[in-house]
Amino acid sequence: MSNIQNNSIPEKTIERLSEYRRTLKSCHEQGITHIFSHVLAGIHGITAVQVRRDLMLIGFSSDTKKGYDVEVLIEFINSILDSRGPMHIAVIGMGNLGQALTKYFNGRGLTLRIVAAFDIDPAKVGHEIDDIPCYPMGEFEKQVEALDIKIVILSSPAKVASELVVPIINAGIKGVLNFTSMPLNFPRGIVVENYDITTLLEKVAYFVKENEETTL
Amino acid sequence: MSNIQNNSIPEKTIERLSEYRRTLKSCHEQGITHIFSHVLAGIHGITAVQVRRDLMLIGFSSDTKKGYDVEVLIEFINSILDSRGPMHIAVIGMGNLGQALTKYFNGRGLTLRIVAAFDIDPAKVGHEIDDIPCYPMGEFEKQVEALDIKIVILSSPAKVASELVVPIINAGIKGVLNFTSMPLNFPRGIVVENYDITTLLEKVAYFVKENEETTL
Repeated sequence: MSNIQNNSIPEKTIERLSEYRRTLKSCHEQGITHIFSHVLAGIHGITAVQVRRDLMLIGFSSDTKKGYDVEVLIEFINSILDSRGPMHIAVIGMGNLGQALTKYFNGRGLTLRIVAAFDIDPAKVGHEIDDIPCYPMGEFEKQVEALDIKIVILSSPAKVASELVVPIINAGIKGVLNFTSMPLNFPRGIVVENYDITTLLEKVAYFVKENEETTL
Repeated sequence: MSNIQNNSIPEKTIERLSEYRRTLKSCHEQGITHIFSHVLAGIHGITAVQVRRDLMLIGFSSDTKKGYDVEVLIEFINSILDSRGPMHIAVIGMGNLGQALTKYFNGRGLTLRIVAAFDIDPAKVGHEIDDIPCYPMGEFEKQVEALDIKIVILSSPAKVASELVVPIINAGIKGVLNFTSMPLNFPRGIVVENYDITTLLEKVAYFVKENEETTL
């Protein structure tokens, strides 16, 4: 569902590193200082071999008799995943999903920061949603430059999604997380993750149906 | 990110079939009667070989000189993906994301139907959101049986997600689409898709960072 390719660390490893880090942070909050690979693996429903392979891929090898040092591992994953400064993000389309995504990501203490929203609805433009200003789509290119926005989250209606491709390219956006049901293609150099939630629900439903038919 | 395994049709093919179907429906609405595999492939950013392989896997072979018959192919994919009757779904956790997901899926004309929501917040319980009744979590098992709910969409705070595993198993739920950042494990026979949107955003950000460092 993405156009990511030819990078040294596989896409799936990057996903798991992000997931490990969240688990590790939660352990850290609970005062847990060390964790074994098989414990981390169990939480994520994968094998300890997979965890060790992922950490080997990023060059982390300080396993101890007590398992991995939670704080050290968090810092190490930070050094791999995070950019040096904060990375600015905009949400395009402030319908229900756009607003929910904004509230979800906003203030999570990530280095990823939502700094602007865009819409064409006059009722939304000029207002703030969860302290994030909503600009008219006509100002997109201008604001992307002024606010140093690198990534957009697309939550517009599917019907208008394809009209957004050219403005996104022209504005110099480097990454797109596309939540619309319209798959979008971008030139190389722009990372796209097409992430259609209807597909997921249909997939779960299919395998539920299959399981039911198998057990009948 | 899921525990799906050992089925005849691969998970990724099921995802793509769901995506093809949405594209085909949109073509049908526009009056397009036939589509070539390479056109369908182009829209989804994949190769025509992949499209043909996916359709071969489900036993669809009625390619014509004009390409695939759009209506026939939609019907064929329906027969693979859809259950015979509607499949009932509940949303657990009616915060911003839960409400947005409910509004997003509700009334989409899918065979998948959201029929109930659950929360512990007295301000939400007893009310309707987008015509979907919100029940207290204490009634979960009872309502799942009464309403024949097969699938739950989890959008609770991550901190309470793990407390929901036992009620979900006990109620006889068959599929879980987990949007919380807490990965959940269920016994075999319950399909789980852990779908953490923070991971996606972090993944896009990582590859944006990598691309920037490569081109510097």
